[in-house]
Amino acid sequence: MSNPILVEVTRGTTVESRHRGSVAVVDADGATVLSLGDVKTPIFPRSAIKGLQALVLVESGGADRYGLDDEALALACASDSGEPAHVARAERRFGAAGLDASALECGTHWPSHQASALALARSGATATALHNNCSGKHSGFLCAACAMGVATHGYVAAEHPVQREVKAVLEGTTGAKIPDEYRAVDGCSVPTWAVPLDALALAFARFATGRHMGEKRAAAAQRLRAAVAAKPWFVSGTGRFSSELMGHFGARAFVKGGAEGVYCGALPQLGYGVAIKCDDGQGRGAEVVMAAVIERLLRLDDADRKFLAPLVRPTLRNWKGTEVGSLVPTKELERVCGELRPKRKFETR
Amino acid sequence: MSNPILVEVTRGTTVESRHRGSVAVVDADGATVLSLGDVKTPIFPRSAIKGLQALVLVESGGADRYGLDDEALALACASDSGEPAHVARAERRFGAAGLDASALECGTHWPSHQASALALARSGATATALHNNCSGKHSGFLCAACAMGVATHGYVAAEHPVQREVKAVLEGTTGAKIPDEYRAVDGCSVPTWAVPLDALALAFARFATGRHMGEKRAAAAQRLRAAVAAKPWFVSGTGRFSSELMGHFGARAFVKGGAEGVYCGALPQLGYGVAIKCDDGQGRGAEVVMAAVIERLLRLDDADRKFLAPLVRPTLRNWKGTEVGSLVPTKELERVCGELRPKRKFETR
Repeated sequence: MSNPILVEVTRGTTVESRHRGSVAVVDADGATVLSLGDVKTPIFPRSAIKGLQALVLVESGGADRYGLDDEALALACASDSGEPAHVARAERRFGAAGLDASALECGTHWPSHQASALALARSGATATALHNNCSGKHSGFLCAACAMGVATHGYVAAEHPVQREVKAVLEGTTGAKIPDEYRAVDGCSVPTWAVPLDALALAFARFATGRHMGEKRAAAAQRLRAAVAAKPWFVSGTGRFSSELMGHFGARAFVKGGAEGVYCGALPQLGYGVAIKCDDGQGRGAEVVMAAVIERLLRLDDADRKFLAPLVRPTLRNWKGTEVGSLVPTKELERVCGELRPKRKFETR
Repeated sequence: MSNPILVEVTRGTTVESRHRGSVAVVDADGATVLSLGDVKTPIFPRSAIKGLQALVLVESGGADRYGLDDEALALACASDSGEPAHVARAERRFGAAGLDASALECGTHWPSHQASALALARSGATATALHNNCSGKHSGFLCAACAMGVATHGYVAAEHPVQREVKAVLEGTTGAKIPDEYRAVDGCSVPTWAVPLDALALAFARFATGRHMGEKRAAAAQRLRAAVAAKPWFVSGTGRFSSELMGHFGARAFVKGGAEGVYCGALPQLGYGVAIKCDDGQGRGAEVVMAAVIERLLRLDDADRKFLAPLVRPTLRNWKGTEVGSLVPTKELERVCGELRPKRKFETR
């Protein structure tokens, strides 16, 4: 099956590149709101499900035990840019759990935020595991392990109790039974489990509403959503899509990207979950699709529309700042979004 | 028209992402050797045609006038990583032409080679236009302008004599008549002209052989090929596809990538030109296709095969160095490559 082209990359008046992909929007009862392309073949959600992975931190009692505040919980859901305040916050959390950064098993890379990487080099320091974009999630796994009373060493292994619980949460929220063949290793060394796109959208509809997930999990989801809405900068960083979008919409949209062109979102006001995969793995395409879907689904005022416009049709500039092209949703994507009907507000609990 | 999937990205045992695209291999008389996908719609070749753009530098007399050696000519064909030796070489060339880096109109960015960027920051210095990956091409344009006796200021504009000559060379070598609507602005601010993939492959077959391009141009192409074969590291840099591949094959393969998933190549022994475009703009896909085509076309010994294998099926590793997946040519690409017949050696002049 060939997925439709969702986003075109223009240069001058010519289309230079094209992103194919699939999109699912589902409500918490599993009813399809929007389905475009193949939403049934399992895909690796990668970092787009950090919100679901962080449920384990809250449900285990780790968040309470170590007094994690909104910033710390937002960082548990984050792929951060390694800016100084991200790193400082991640470091403080370890103190609370009586651990230090040597417990992290995510590997090391320099901050993706270039100015922060260069400043770190200028200071004479070097990157550590705390600069890894997944360090917040990993410190959450460590807190969960401590709260569960299990060994912290080896917490990235698929058979470790924390990762088994992550898989159980993923199966519980998506409703998918995940066979072993759909397990692979993520960039930060934890397992990543392939799940169909419509099942991921269902999980985020439940995450958005607390429905069909039990009282305890619903409360954990609500707490994480509130933390991220209060501190969205900690979820990615300066100038990045998810932080910018949640910085504007607050509790109206929880969105998170993952490597290889994945984006997931929860729209609590509508009770919807959204899941997007670009076939080719390019995040720029998935971001445009998410912006286009949100532009159609949310009830917008003029300020909202003005904010969203450059995310739906981002301008591309060259090294001298000259506008050279743009990303544009295709007519096919616009047609399918255009068929969406406004929905009465969903009452979250 | 839907282009075929050429490369799959696997994670564990599952396909995570897919790259569609098109490939043309053509001989200097325009006969098709291989054609897969849409090779007729114009695409922006971007930096993949720096070898053709550099013909203007040699034909104008600029290369002789300023005594440009192999390193300087290789850098004129380069998208370099901004490593210290790239930058030092680019700087020396300006001295020869009586110019300095302030004449560059390419814009500034930090070196793409991370260790070089971090070392530059540690030294207390900052990036300049000399670190721009296109600085070598731009200093070539400046030398050409001086040799042509025209103003250097504004040399990036489409109406400047240097860029008009670049367009004439592109039309001459590709045989394509390029209407104004197919002009856009490149990342480094010069014009980029969209040309069909099969016409690009034809241009590189001519660049490979000197056929159908006149004595002077043929000599210029031969000089550039020899310079790049002698100093391939200057064309991109440490660990990068084109430098590594030409470092191994020397004069047997001239290859150069461009932004948005383009790769072009000249195979002088066979008299072939190769042009590849990944629909989605990802260079990793185009590199695998180039490696797969070369693996099939060139006459290889065991050392060649051993060298090529990890380029045809690159291993993907995570931040801890664990193997997590790979890039793999699809059966469709392998089938089409498999139909290629070995060819008698083409005698270059």
